[in-house]
Amino acid sequence: MKVVPIGEYVMVKPDEAEGVSAGGIVLPDTARKKPSQGRVLSVSDGRLLPNGQRAPHQVAEGDRVLFASHAGTEVTIDGMELLIVSEKDILAVIF
Amino acid sequence: MKVVPIGEYVMVKPDEAEGVSAGGIVLPDTARKKPSQGRVLSVSDGRLLPNGQRAPHQVAEGDRVLFASHAGTEVTIDGMELLIVSEKDILAVIF
Amino acid sequence: MKVVPIGEYVMVKPDEAEGVSAGGIVLPDTARKKPSQGRVLSVSDGRLLPNGQRAPHQVAEGDRVLFASHAGTEVTIDGMELLIVSEKDILAVIF
Amino acid sequence: MKVVPIGEYVMVKPDEAEGVSAGGIVLPDTARKKPSQGRVLSVSDGRLLPNGQRAPHQVAEGDRVLFASHAGTEVTIDGMELLIVSEKDILAVIF
Amino acid sequence: MKVVPIGEYVMVKPDEAEGVSAGGIVLPDTARKKPSQGRVLSVSDGRLLPNGQRAPHQVAEGDRVLFASHAGTEVTIDGMELLIVSEKDILAVIF
Amino acid sequence: MKVVPIGEYVMVKPDEAEGVSAGGIVLPDTARKKPSQGRVLSVSDGRLLPNGQRAPHQVAEGDRVLFASHAGTEVTIDGMELLIVSEKDILAVIF
Amino acid sequence: MKVVPIGEYVMVKPDEAEGVSAGGIVLPDTARKKPSQGRVLSVSDGRLLPNGQRAPHQVAEGDRVLFASHAGTEVTIDGMELLIVSEKDILAVIF
Repeated sequence: MKVVPIGEYVMVKPDEAEGVSAGGIVLPDTARKKPSQGRVLSVSDGRLLPNGQRAPHQVAEGDRVLFASHAGTEVTIDGMELLIVSEKDILAVIF
Repeated sequence: MKVVPIGEYVMVKPDEAEGVSAGGIVLPDTARKKPSQGRVLSVSDGRLLPNGQRAPHQVAEGDRVLFASHAGTEVTIDGMELLIVSEKDILAVIF
Repeated sequence: MKVVPIGEYVMVKPDEAEGVSAGGIVLPDTARKKPSQGRVLSVSDGRLLPNGQRAPHQVAEGDRVLFASHAGTEVTIDGMELLIVSEKDILAVIF
Repeated sequence: MKVVPIGEYVMVKPDEAEGVSAGGIVLPDTARKKPSQGRVLSVSDGRLLPNGQRAPHQVAEGDRVLFASHAGTEVTIDGMELLIVSEKDILAVIF
Repeated sequence: MKVVPIGEYVMVKPDEAEGVSAGGIVLPDTARKKPSQGRVLSVSDGRLLPNGQRAPHQVAEGDRVLFASHAGTEVTIDGMELLIVSEKDILAVIF
Repeated sequence: MKVVPIGEYVMVKPDEAEGVSAGGIVLPDTARKKPSQGRVLSVSDGRLLPNGQRAPHQVAEGDRVLFASHAGTEVTIDGMELLIVSEKDILAVIF
Repeated sequence: MKVVPIGEYVMVKPDEAEGVSAGGIVLPDTARKKPSQGRVLSVSDGRLLPNGQRAPHQVAEGDRVLFASHAGTEVTIDGMELLIVSEKDILAVIF
């Protein structure tokens, strides 16, 4: 079974422990907004532009990303808890 | 009798049991937004663009889709409870 | 006397009994939004686009349509209770 | 003395008795929005488009129109109580 | 000393007595919005369009205008109480 | 040290006494909005347009300007209390 | 490890002591909005324009910048507390 996002959405597998990630990024505990981390599983054809074309995503399958912590719609696929997130809520790619 | 959506709308037959779907997608029970599932019955000519053209839908008749759970307008046609949903509220296609 | 909509409007004669329509569409009684039905009596030249052209309506005189139930402005013309509805509030055409 | 609207405005002389108009249009007494009626006295060069051109009005001097009942700015000119109304608030022309 | 508006602004000298104007326009005392009157003293190069050009104003120095009564920013220049008003708030020119 | 605005911003040195300015402009004490005065110290390359170009500012270094009184972000540079103001909040240039 | 912003974002290392900065800019203590300072660590390919192109950032790696004080999303990378900030919230570059 495969779930392919449409529109401006990408499918992300969020990291389980958000306090300290495997990559060494510690998310602080303050009042300011804090992002979540995860890995991109699949992407759509990109956001629709006013001229009818689609803007290709800046993230691709396999990318590790930081995204706004309350963004996305939850779905469980083949036992994995995943998020469908708008690319607008993705802040950065981690290399 | 046939009902053909216009504008940015598609007609969707939502799955009856939303807890566990036939395709194995379990929708979790948390505070975050959760999508509904269904099958596309018919689509419009697509959303009107500022240049007067229409953007073809990314979903087609027969597609299984995930859509925002509170989206759409209910209508019962020939005994079937259907939803007319904006394509903006459709998140992904399930293959 | 004739009333011709302008802008993005169409003139609709709503069905009288909304519970069960002549065409067999039963409108359910739930919390979700439910559409109304009616027949298009006249249409405008279409919505103004940013480039100054007008987008022709997707509905035409005589079409049976589903529209958002609280949409439109009421007017009684020659004894008929009619609605002037924006095409944005029309969801589908019934054939 | 002459008052010429600019921007997206037209000058309208509203009918005095709004309950039953001379043209036979009875405005019902319900909860839904109800339009007012009047005659167009003068129009501007039309709404400014993003490309710098102006979209000509769909109404002209002398037209009888239906417009949103709470729309417009009141002004008394030469003893007449008039309204300056945005064309966006005009729903239809009565022939 | 000269004050030249920029952006979408024009400089207006409002009439002192707003109840009855010299030009014979009586402003009624009702619940609906009522305009103010004044004379245009100077105008900017016009509103910036999305394509980078400027749309010339529809009013010019010396024009008598009707404008939304609460619009504008007050400033006293050389003893005159003036208003800097967006052209969007100007409804009509009085000839 | 030099501070150069970006985006739609300009750097303004506001007048110290706002009640009566050196140029003879008395700002009245009423309920309507009143502007502040100041001198432009530096400007950005201009606001980004949808086509990717930048619209040059209508104000330049050295101009005396009127701007919305609560606009801008305060910053003290080399002992001077300055404001970084969006050009949208600048109403007029004083010559 | 490297974190590369996407969309309209830039990565900023904010100054630790915000009261008085090393560069001599004293941030005053008033009711008006006050900016924060920091150094740009990395930038994205720029904001997506409606035509599908990207507008290059006006700031570059190494620039010292003033930005809106409550802007940005916090993240700790390799022990550094950083901010991912939209370029729209950056007011000026300090040279």
